[in-house]
Amino acid sequence: MTLSMYQASVPVFARNLGHLAAILDKAATHAAAKKIDPAVLVGARLYPDMLPLSKQVQIATDHAKNGSGRLAGAERPVFEDDETTFEQLQARIAKTLDYLKTLDPARFEGSDEREISVPVRGRELVLKGAPYLLGFAQPNFYFHVGMAYALLRHNGVEIGKTDFIGALPD
Amino acid sequence: MTLSMYQASVPVFARNLGHLAAILDKAATHAAAKKIDPAVLVGARLYPDMLPLSKQVQIATDHAKNGSGRLAGAERPVFEDDETTFEQLQARIAKTLDYLKTLDPARFEGSDEREISVPVRGRELVLKGAPYLLGFAQPNFYFHVGMAYALLRHNGVEIGKTDFIGALPD
Repeated sequence: MTLSMYQASVPVFARNLGHLAAILDKAATHAAAKKIDPAVLVGARLYPDMLPLSKQVQIATDHAKNGSGRLAGAERPVFEDDETTFEQLQARIAKTLDYLKTLDPARFEGSDEREISVPVRGRELVLKGAPYLLGFAQPNFYFHVGMAYALLRHNGVEIGKTDFIGALPD
Repeated sequence: MTLSMYQASVPVFARNLGHLAAILDKAATHAAAKKIDPAVLVGARLYPDMLPLSKQVQIATDHAKNGSGRLAGAERPVFEDDETTFEQLQARIAKTLDYLKTLDPARFEGSDEREISVPVRGRELVLKGAPYLLGFAQPNFYFHVGMAYALLRHNGVEIGKTDFIGALPD
């Protein structure tokens, strides 16, 4: 037995998006408790030329959606990238999770060897599904979820690694 | 075709440890150029009760080493966790990469269904190899590499996402 491409992508993205949603909930609760304008956290950055929380969430959901959708060879919805509140960011995560649920695991069969076309750093890159998932979609996804966590933690939101890792898997 | 457990673990850990080593090199160069005591960066944290850079690197390498070693059913070296300089952190990454090279891909066959015993949050957890990799070793590894990146970026080291993702995969 080995891992299916589906197993290594969709449930992993979905699980971690669930953790991200819970982290954003804690951030919103923290803002309310401390009388912080939630927009301050949604716009927070770890460094002046880094992207703010809203963009980190947008890009994380994009990698989950586009990574899974490209492997499945499925139509992918386009999101507007106009979220400015915690509620809107939660809605974006929910939309992404809803989309992931529409993807039939059977469509991922053979996707490890299938050629995937992806725009990267200004050019169109063609690579096989396995390196696309393991060397591009996966690290990009974890990067942006990690940066969302890091900037909220840095801003005093009471979260710990357990919020990032989630419940222990079965 | 699907993904082998080896393919989804050892080369992914190795690749990202290489990126981490390059990021630490940039941090050491930055410290020298700005006349910052390197110990300041090695001990830097994103928040007072978060772990410093040295621990982030130690734990990231541990998840690479232990995650891979447990899946292979192989002996795992124990590291002393006494690194206090960039050179020592680089040596730890190099030791981890050397260990990963000793693991025969054949030993990972069937590891997706094999029971793995792992100490987690004070108790001994037994779970199968696939959820162990996808739901525990992998997110923990990315978490700590991500926090190392985030705290160096926050401290002004000139790195970008490309340093985290690395060269585009083939």
